[in-house]
Parts: sequence; structure tokens; C-alpha cells
Amino acid sequence: MQRALSVTREAFPDWYQAVVREADLAEASPVRGCMVIKPWGYGVWERIQQVLDRRIKETGHENAYFPLFIPLSFFAKEAEHVAGFAKEMAVVTHHRLKMIDGKLQPDPEAKLEEPLIVRPTSETIIGDAFSRWVKSHRDLPVLINQWANIVRWEMRTRLFLRTAEFLWQEGHTAHATGEEAREETMKMLQVYREFSEGTLAMPVIAGEKSANERFPGAVATYSIEAMMQDGKALQAGTSHYLGQHFAEAQNIRFQNDAGELQFCHTTSWGVSTRLIGGVIMTHGDDDGLRLPPACAPQQIVIVPMLRDKPEDAALLEYCDVLAKALREKIAFGEPLRVLLDKKAQKSAEKRWNWVRRGAPLIVEVGGRDMAGGTVTYMRRDVLRDGDKVKSHNAPREQFAAEAAGLLVEIQNALFAEAKARLASNIRTDITSFDGLVEYFKGDEDGFKGWVKASWARPEGAELETIDEKLKGLKLTLRNAPLDQPAAHGPCIFTGRPGVEEILIARAY
Amino acid sequence: MQRALSVTREAFPDWYQAVVREADLAEASPVRGCMVIKPWGYGVWERIQQVLDRRIKETGHENAYFPLFIPLSFFAKEAEHVAGFAKEMAVVTHHRLKMIDGKLQPDPEAKLEEPLIVRPTSETIIGDAFSRWVKSHRDLPVLINQWANIVRWEMRTRLFLRTAEFLWQEGHTAHATGEEAREETMKMLQVYREFSEGTLAMPVIAGEKSANERFPGAVATYSIEAMMQDGKALQAGTSHYLGQHFAEAQNIRFQNDAGELQFCHTTSWGVSTRLIGGVIMTHGDDDGLRLPPACAPQQIVIVPMLRDKPEDAALLEYCDVLAKALREKIAFGEPLRVLLDKKAQKSAEKRWNWVRRGAPLIVEVGGRDMAGGTVTYMRRDVLRDGDKVKSHNAPREQFAAEAAGLLVEIQNALFAEAKARLASNIRTDITSFDGLVEYFKGDEDGFKGWVKASWARPEGAELETIDEKLKGLKLTLRNAPLDQPAAHGPCIFTGRPGVEEILIARAY
Repeated sequence: MQRALSVTREAFPDWYQAVVREADLAEASPVRGCMVIKPWGYGVWERIQQVLDRRIKETGHENAYFPLFIPLSFFAKEAEHVAGFAKEMAVVTHHRLKMIDGKLQPDPEAKLEEPLIVRPTSETIIGDAFSRWVKSHRDLPVLINQWANIVRWEMRTRLFLRTAEFLWQEGHTAHATGEEAREETMKMLQVYREFSEGTLAMPVIAGEKSANERFPGAVATYSIEAMMQDGKALQAGTSHYLGQHFAEAQNIRFQNDAGELQFCHTTSWGVSTRLIGGVIMTHGDDDGLRLPPACAPQQIVIVPMLRDKPEDAALLEYCDVLAKALREKIAFGEPLRVLLDKKAQKSAEKRWNWVRRGAPLIVEVGGRDMAGGTVTYMRRDVLRDGDKVKSHNAPREQFAAEAAGLLVEIQNALFAEAKARLASNIRTDITSFDGLVEYFKGDEDGFKGWVKASWARPEGAELETIDEKLKGLKLTLRNAPLDQPAAHGPCIFTGRPGVEEILIARAY
Repeated sequence: MQRALSVTREAFPDWYQAVVREADLAEASPVRGCMVIKPWGYGVWERIQQVLDRRIKETGHENAYFPLFIPLSFFAKEAEHVAGFAKEMAVVTHHRLKMIDGKLQPDPEAKLEEPLIVRPTSETIIGDAFSRWVKSHRDLPVLINQWANIVRWEMRTRLFLRTAEFLWQEGHTAHATGEEAREETMKMLQVYREFSEGTLAMPVIAGEKSANERFPGAVATYSIEAMMQDGKALQAGTSHYLGQHFAEAQNIRFQNDAGELQFCHTTSWGVSTRLIGGVIMTHGDDDGLRLPPACAPQQIVIVPMLRDKPEDAALLEYCDVLAKALREKIAFGEPLRVLLDKKAQKSAEKRWNWVRRGAPLIVEVGGRDMAGGTVTYMRRDVLRDGDKVKSHNAPREQFAAEAAGLLVEIQNALFAEAKARLASNIRTDITSFDGLVEYFKGDEDGFKGWVKASWARPEGAELETIDEKLKGLKLTLRNAPLDQPAAHGPCIFTGRPGVEEILIARAY
């Protein structure tokens, strides 16, 4: 069968790269580990920003902007934090270049007294601002969000999934009590879950990370985990309750009702361009990307079959009427996003480009359609009937009337498909570490899905040993889902009574 | 007279700082030269982004994202470009920290082979991407925009006006012909002019910069210049025709119709968070900021006069009905932005905070208003009648019906006021350098406005000398306005026949 990509999901890593390239989402740059996000990929990010930003504001947060650079001394104030990040940061040491011996280089006379770190996350620099902003309990809570670029010096990079520079939003809040901060942490985790499932059609399991997987310096870290089509887990968002650690390190204090000075309780939470990788690996197929309509930069692409002849004008006019009618319709609370692709390129080429890019509805209009007052269209979610491309014909006005409904249908179908995959690929019948070994050994690239098992929630050295043993199977602990059964069997690792269920999986 | 600020515009630099602080727009950070943009200030930037982004897309451009870091070698490819920027850049030299002798510092073993520059502008790194994207004339034009953070190591910084890190958009385009690239350069200059005047209510003069003020590597640089209330000029946006220099340096070539390889012609254009400084200095008064409604994060703020009593509930309900009615109205093509300020704070304090922050309409609602079915409101553009605050009373429904119209009136009034200032403060009767000296000497902080004079458009050493002489008067050449008279008098500097008019002013 002829597919729009030259590789299939059988070779999953190659397939992923092919989709990123062929769907025109991003490309590697000459700067090690940094990516160029191309317009179609950036369009998906803009959709993510727009929808999530609205949710973040509806939950009472305001956007602000903090410095890209963090003084080294700030970073060093929180011991666990520095240990967690110091190994992968870009360090600015000079503020000028100079031509020396015919070669442009950092000017030795412009060496900074204190090196600056390019932010790998902003808890410390934002905490410093909070220490100025918060004086009294009347100043609390402080609810801030920032959209920004982040740099972590990763050695092995993969476009969207792990890059030295990436884009994200990071929420940072300060509260009078731990209870309120914990509530905030959980609220934003829910916002992420709803956003991921509602907008990206990517089902996730929300839960708490194990002690070893906590954000450096956090008291508790929660994540949403999504299952990719190769059965691996993708951590798609995190929300941290930071306790008073950062407040103590950055001196964020307030005077309570009784006039006493107390440290705030803080939280932070973020999602990044990594989500785009999640969308690709959740919905892509062997013809390329399939974008859920709610996060597609263009939901409907109209391809007129131009022939470089005088008749083209009438055909374009016919398409233009359709585009205008569609743009007056509403889906997901917004006017439809419709592109009339007039580019000088063969229409078959255009069609396949839009298939690879994952436009939810692709409409082709030729002379015969125009004569009959109809349009021909393809649904990207069910592109084929067996080997053949499945196209539909409908009167133009009928299509315009039904398009918004079709987009909702596509959104729901993509979610249902991914949801079914997640639901049916979590094994709950493996109850011993030997069973885990038996199940996961060999065939490392085969689809295995996840295992959910009871555990005793060990910490410290015991947890280290477990992580090491799992590492031998290329497995990691993902999270302990918020939804837990009432009773638990024995711990899969220690045999002691279990206290909760935890997800175990290979992961990105 | 009691004012909401403790300094007046008489002490303009102090007044500017006071507005930035008291209107809660931004603050200095512990990182030298970097600012924290606070929610109200960032809200103005979000408005700028939203409105301008729409215009940039309507003119055919797509957003994308390119690496923060630029390899030193890239930067060095364009000789003028490197000379223009090398003196003020943040240089990344290491990618890891290490604890050495009990002190956290850059790990000598993690020194980069090639230093990376934090982008001071992205012509080179985007040009490199264009060199991969452009093969044939069918790939042209490439019309890209990026919203990003930028770092230039400035020694003297002032919030919004000149900071080491700032936010901006930078457009970068590649074309088959110089004619088309020049057209693009002028088109975006016009977009900036319309945006500045229409949305920021900030009148500007669009024109070409002198040879010495060109962007490093550009063939021609155009700017929009705005007049601040101290008579100084603020360069508020620039648009550059780069010729083939960057295309040659980055190897951006295309095959033309005839199959020959040719270098593209490129452009770039940008505006930054500096615009916020322009809004402050154009519209602020001795009570703080006055925001044009089209760029105000909140256009109408409702302050209920709460008394911590059971009656508060009814008052809030009364205000809520008003807020909802207002949010259904449209001004400037968008639903009104309305805030009901429920914060636990005295209502008089709130009122003055919103005055200082420049909310265009401030509505106060107390028990008496509610009993009478009315609201009391202030227009921020005409806050006072003599010394006293001028407030208006209107039936609630009438106010809701008229609010959108009031906002448009305020927008127009602010523009008209600034336009009159610009129009009446450009002297055209100074025709010799001696006259210039006479006019500008002494009283360096007094309001002088601008001078428009004929000149012979000298370049090279002659222009250097003129710039030096102007520098002695703290003057600079701003631009040669696009609107030019048919004939010109003799050059104010050389006495030779003039070829165009040029603006001369003190500037930020």
C-alpha cells in the first residue's frame, strides 16, 4: 500500500522523525540541541498557548515576565535545587567580544564578576520578586504565570521531546498556608488533565511522582502521563507543591493576622513544547500527523484544483464563498480556522502535504464539483477505507452547515481511539518483580504498555535500589494515580502491604 | 494641589520612574540591566502582541521560533553586523557548573568549543534556516515573524526604554527581487505607523534614518519616531532593507526562472517592549499613567464601595450585572475588558491605584448609587476639573449603553492631544547650524521639541563630523520623513543645495 510517509510506526523512532520533518513541524538547528520550530509546528504551539492561557487566567492567574538570567548565587541557595540542575545549564561568563589575534572571542576584560545561568526554570528568580511583593497576608495569594524559553543542556536531544532550549509556561504561586498551596497544586494538575484531554485529545493519568522523581526541592510532585503509540509513557505536565523550601531560600515572608512573620508556601507547574511531541505520538499514523481540530492551526484546508487557465478565477470564487461561509461557523467556542490554499503547486501535491501535516478536514474542489455545486472532502482521522483514500462528496452548503459538527466528531474520535489504547494497555495482573522481568525482558522495542501494581511507597535507599532494578529493564515509575482503589495487595517490590497503586512503564 | 504621584513631569526622568513604579508596570531585578515586567505592564505587552500579531498575520506573515543562541562564527560572517553588535552581547562559554573548592563555578571541563551568543537580533540564525528553506523562486517570498526575548549588554539601563533583556517581535523576509523587498520594508513601516497611532494613540513620523544610523549591515533603515512630553524623540520601531548582504553571508540562494542561482533580498523589522515606555511618556500625567483604551489590559474597572457588612452582597450583585452588560459590548472590534475589583482594600485606595495605573474608565459604586440605580465614573483622560477630581453620574443602563462610545472618545482624545503636541513642536525656521546652537544651547532639560531642516544627505566623513557636532548639543538625526516637500532650501549643515528634510532632536 502506498502511504504518505516512507516509514511506518513499526520503526517508531524513525517514524517520529519522519513526521516531524514531513509535517513541517520543526528541524534541527546548527546550535547543538536547539530546534527551529517551523510555522506549522509553531501554529500548534500558538493554539496550545491560546487555549491554556485562557484557562490559566480563568483560574485567577496573571501573566508576567522575569529575567532570562539567574545569578549563580541565587541558584545555589536551595541545595537540592542546585544539585538537580547544576549539571545541565548554559553559563554566561562574558558580556563582550573582542578581536584578538584576528579571531573574535570573549573579551577577557569583560568577564562577569558573577556568572549568570540561563534559566533552566525560574523558581529562584521569581521567588526573589515574590520576596519584594509579599509583605502582609493581604498580599496573598500571589498567582503568577510566565510564558518563556528555557535552557537545559541535554546531551541526547530529540525534537520537541528533549531539546536544550524549549518553550513552556511556568506557573508560580505563593500562599499563606500549606493547605491552600496543595489545593493550588491539585487545581492546576486538573487544568492540565482537562486541557490535555479536551484540547489535545490526549488521555492522561494524573498522579503523584515517587520521591526520587520529585522536582529538585519540592515536597510533592504530580504529573499527567500519556501513553504513546509505542506503549511508552510521556510525562506531559507537572505540578509541584514546594512547601516552604523556596520561601526560606528566597525569604518570601508575610505578616499574619497576629502580626507574626511567616514563610509562604509556594507551588510551581508547567507544560512545554514537549506536548507537541505527545500529540504526534498519540495521533500520528502511517500517513503522517493527525491533528485534533481543537489544536490544529487550520482546521479545514480547501485545495482548489487550479489548471492555470481562465476558469481558475471562477473556481477560486467558488472556494472563497465556501471559506467565508465556514469562517462564520463556530466549533470549540471559536470561529472555524479555514485556509484556502492558493499556492502555485500541483493540487495532488498539496493534498498530500496537508495529509502529512494532519489538517483535520481537507477539501478538494475541481471543475466537476463546481458544476454540481458540491465539494469533495477527506476526514484526516479516517483517511482510508482499506488501502484506498476515502473521500466524501456533499453539496457545498450542506458541507458548510455540517463542518463544525464534523470537527467535533473528529476531535471525539481521536480522543476515543487514544483512550481505548490507554485503557486496554495497562496490565494489572503482574504482582511480583519476577513477573515484571518476565513481561518486559527482551524485545525492547515491542509494544508493552504499562503495568499498574500495588506498592508500599518506599523512599530513601530502598527506593534507589528499586529504581536501579527497574533501570535494568529500562523501566521507570511513572506516578501513583489520584484514583486509587480502597484496598491494596502486597507491594510488587518489597512484598510488604501495599499502600497505593503505581504505574510502571518505559518512558520518554 | 494633591496629585496621585509625588513628582510631576517637571522632573521628567524622576516622574518616569515614579509612573513605572506606581502604576505597577515593572521593576529592576537583581540581574544587572534586566527587568521584571509586572502583570499590569505585561498586560499592556499582551495587548500590543495581540493587536500587532493580527496585523502581521493579515499581511501574510507566519510566526515561527528560532534558537536563543547564535554560534559565534555565524555572527562573524557579516562584517558590519559583527562590528555593530560585538560590544554588547552575553556570551555563553560553559554548559555545566561544578563545586570546586567549596564554590559552585563553571566546570572547566565543560567549556564549549565555540562560544554561543545570546541573540541580540536573529538575522544570522534565521538567515541560516532560510538558506535551507529556499531553493527555487517558487519558495519565495518567505515571510516569517518571531516573538522573542533579546539580550544586548547595555551599560546604562532604564526600564522599558533600554534594558539588557527585552521582548520584541522581529520579522524576517526573503524575496526574489530588491524591488519586492523594498516594498515589504515600507509595508511593515506603515503597519507600525498605523499600529502606533491607531492602538497606542501615539502619533509618529515615519522616515529614513541617516547612513550612520542604519542597522549594522542594512542598505536602508526606516523608523517611526514619536515625540515624548519632554520634547525628546523615541525611536518606536524600525524596518530594514538588508539588500543581499545577509543572503550572501548566510548563502540564501534561489534558482530563478532561467535556472540561474541568485541571492535573495532580505528585510527585517521590529518593535519591542520599548513601546510601553513610549506610551508612558506620551500619555502619562501628574496623576500617573493614562492608557489608551485600545491597549489597556482592563478598559473599565468597577470599584464597589464595600463596607464589610451584609449589604455588600447586594452591591456586588449590582456591580456584577453592570460588568456582564459591559462585557457584551464591543469597542475596537473586541468585547470590552472589564474588571470588577473585589480585592479587600479600601475603595479610595483602589480608586487611586487605578488612576495611577491609567485605567481609562473607573467606576465607583456605593450604596447611594445602587439606591438610585446609577453609577459614578471618572474618565482617566480628563480626570480633573481644575484641581478637583471630576466625576460623572449616570443611570447604570445608560452607562452600559454608552461605555463603548466613551472608550472610543477617550482613545481619540488622547491621540488628538499627542498629535497636537507633535504638530506644534517641530520648528522649521532654523536654517543654519548656528541657529541650531542658539536654540538648543543651555537648559538641557527644558522642552525644546524637534527641528526639521533641509540637508544635502551627506555620508562618510562629512556625516561623522556633523554627528559629532550635534553630539555636542546632545542632538541626533532622527529620520528624513517620507512626506517631503517638492523643493528644498540649502543644507543646514553644509550650505549646499538641500535634497530632503531631516528631523533633528534630542532622543532616548
